[in-house]
Amino acid sequence: MSTPTLEVDIERLKQDIQSLSEIGRKQSHGIYRMAFSEGDMAGRNWLEQRIRDAGLQFHQDGAANLHARLQWQDQVASVMTGSHIDTVPSAGHLDGALGVLCGLEALRVLKENNVPLKRPLELVAFSDEEGRFGGMFGSQALSGDISPEWILQATDLEGKTLVDAMSAHGLNAMDALDAARTPDSIHAFVELHIEQGPVLDREATNIGVVEGICGLRRWEVTLQGTANHAGTTPMDMRNDAFQGLAEFAMQIERILQEHGGPISVATIGRAELFPGAANVVPGEARFSLEFRDLENDTLDELADAFRLTLSTIARRRQLMFEFKEQSNILPVSCDTGIRKLISRNCEQLGYSQRELPSGAAHDSQKLARLTGTGMIFVPSKSGRSHSAAEWTAWSDIQAGANVLLNTLYQLATEDSA
Amino acid sequence: MSTPTLEVDIERLKQDIQSLSEIGRKQSHGIYRMAFSEGDMAGRNWLEQRIRDAGLQFHQDGAANLHARLQWQDQVASVMTGSHIDTVPSAGHLDGALGVLCGLEALRVLKENNVPLKRPLELVAFSDEEGRFGGMFGSQALSGDISPEWILQATDLEGKTLVDAMSAHGLNAMDALDAARTPDSIHAFVELHIEQGPVLDREATNIGVVEGICGLRRWEVTLQGTANHAGTTPMDMRNDAFQGLAEFAMQIERILQEHGGPISVATIGRAELFPGAANVVPGEARFSLEFRDLENDTLDELADAFRLTLSTIARRRQLMFEFKEQSNILPVSCDTGIRKLISRNCEQLGYSQRELPSGAAHDSQKLARLTGTGMIFVPSKSGRSHSAAEWTAWSDIQAGANVLLNTLYQLATEDSA
Repeated sequence: MSTPTLEVDIERLKQDIQSLSEIGRKQSHGIYRMAFSEGDMAGRNWLEQRIRDAGLQFHQDGAANLHARLQWQDQVASVMTGSHIDTVPSAGHLDGALGVLCGLEALRVLKENNVPLKRPLELVAFSDEEGRFGGMFGSQALSGDISPEWILQATDLEGKTLVDAMSAHGLNAMDALDAARTPDSIHAFVELHIEQGPVLDREATNIGVVEGICGLRRWEVTLQGTANHAGTTPMDMRNDAFQGLAEFAMQIERILQEHGGPISVATIGRAELFPGAANVVPGEARFSLEFRDLENDTLDELADAFRLTLSTIARRRQLMFEFKEQSNILPVSCDTGIRKLISRNCEQLGYSQRELPSGAAHDSQKLARLTGTGMIFVPSKSGRSHSAAEWTAWSDIQAGANVLLNTLYQLATEDSA
Repeated sequence: MSTPTLEVDIERLKQDIQSLSEIGRKQSHGIYRMAFSEGDMAGRNWLEQRIRDAGLQFHQDGAANLHARLQWQDQVASVMTGSHIDTVPSAGHLDGALGVLCGLEALRVLKENNVPLKRPLELVAFSDEEGRFGGMFGSQALSGDISPEWILQATDLEGKTLVDAMSAHGLNAMDALDAARTPDSIHAFVELHIEQGPVLDREATNIGVVEGICGLRRWEVTLQGTANHAGTTPMDMRNDAFQGLAEFAMQIERILQEHGGPISVATIGRAELFPGAANVVPGEARFSLEFRDLENDTLDELADAFRLTLSTIARRRQLMFEFKEQSNILPVSCDTGIRKLISRNCEQLGYSQRELPSGAAHDSQKLARLTGTGMIFVPSKSGRSHSAAEWTAWSDIQAGANVLLNTLYQLATEDSA
């Protein structure tokens, strides 16, 4: 608690955010820097130059993750921060990029202040967080979670392989196996990110202290009834698959209340009816069911309740019911010590804060295999996400960057942190 | 009531049904005789030959409707029966064809019995009942319900015009205007058809005495909410368009009970969610709502109730709601006298019977502009319709044909009928 409070240079940070946002810009369609595209490579070159300009040590690992290092010592566990600069199509200027640039600014401020560190500081811009090749390639590689087989089969939606996409830029995809770090090489990982949800914005809170990253189950459900003529089939002689789906949809709220926790969510985002004509009673309804929570036990309980309700509705309505689990991603808890540190910094800097889960996936999820992690959220205007209209007030960005800076500072200097 | 009971030759009828079912057969995919296709033309040629073989007078009107006439007198109103021999794709052997062939058999039996008729008998196979060109071309033309403009613009889904489709077979589409008949040229119209619904089959009833043909309203409804990230948007901060649709779907049963009649039906047969991804809360739901009844007042009341419920759900869930009426078809009542005649024949012939509405559209609907109409339904196995698997027991076909024969006989000979 003896460390003095440091502050980022918000004008310099603003400049960086604006400069990077011009790279990969598609006029009115936002930004597109797909991993290993020309836009992504231009962003990488720009970032490398900014790291070198700041007098930080530049390092590129085998997964093409870009590192900036301060007071590096090979044998001492580093305090790591980072996010990604690749984007979805029609992206905004903040998702991923903000975490990288706030991390860069933090390292610059610490370097300028000549602060002696007990632990080296390390910023990482992870490759392909947005999943051109299906996963979080860079953070997965760094946490030792990829195999040669995975690398050789990884292919994007257009059929281009990871191997080809990297070799086009003189990179060898198999080198990604060398990017793996050991748990004892990382003391802690902290990521700053926009919330991508509406909670902080609606409450006008500056900072979200992330409790953990929600686990997720995704099901593909089919209810099968009988397609019938909508004019000639009396209501009591129908096996209407859509009515079964609608009845189930109306039970989601109750199931979340009875079996979920306060932050559980469940969504039917996709539904298709067959044959899908106005004058035919639907014989089949196929839909997605996705639910998320911070506790895997809660997800288990929700899964049981959803299954029970679906099968009960199906039996009563004489529908066939089947489902396939398409995804099952475990929740990740943020480190209690790091959460406390983030919270304490919010307090000392005078920023309003609240705890909240991350409903979206992040590189932190992968890093949690190696080390304790923490996440700092700043508000997203109206909860916008993966949109050219995403926006966060500069004052909130400044707040987030200051909390990140002081949290990294303390993690790198304090014995207890 | 003095007329003796006549009987069809079921073996001859069976032969006709089987012969016609071979024309336009597509192996395992059922039958396809699209109006004015090669299959339809081959069916027409076969039917003309059967009419001539029976010693009946053959007549083709300007709409290419095929007529078989018995004891024709130009100045005397005819008793008309008929249906159509064109089919949907992958059709069965009964829809339309059964009504035409039972009518042909009835005329044959009356001719063979040398029964003196007060009114000429007339069988019609109407052109394009299934609506290749959007309407019921043949029966619409015969009832004087088409215009030169309509004929010139009528186009099928592939962009081919009615004019071209007919001229390919040496027919002039504009001649269809000459097919119009006056009300005083038709004494009555009776159509036999498979039920295309499950009621008679489930109850094991031989004959359905049709009360009328349901009117129909078809709406295209849109509920507009906000598309949001399914992981980061808490349940109480969503405007989920699909949840609005599901809540409405669950109210359909109540609305039918409160505002509908005993035979009212309503169906959501088509629904689309946007953007339609498992991890996005649906921002928009578009769906069809179709409802049918025999009474137009009931349809009005149902429309009011559906609108009220939709707008209330939309308001409470903060969704935008709009709908377009895509179809509004008036109900048609069958003639009370003809219904009584059909019912009396069922009784005398020892067939079980029940009254029921027709939920599907038929040529009778158009004929009702000119004359009193009646319809005789025979059971459809499991309510199958527009399917290669449609099936009716020969004993039920025999029953229906005998009821049709005696009903036509009485209409053509009795003063009171």
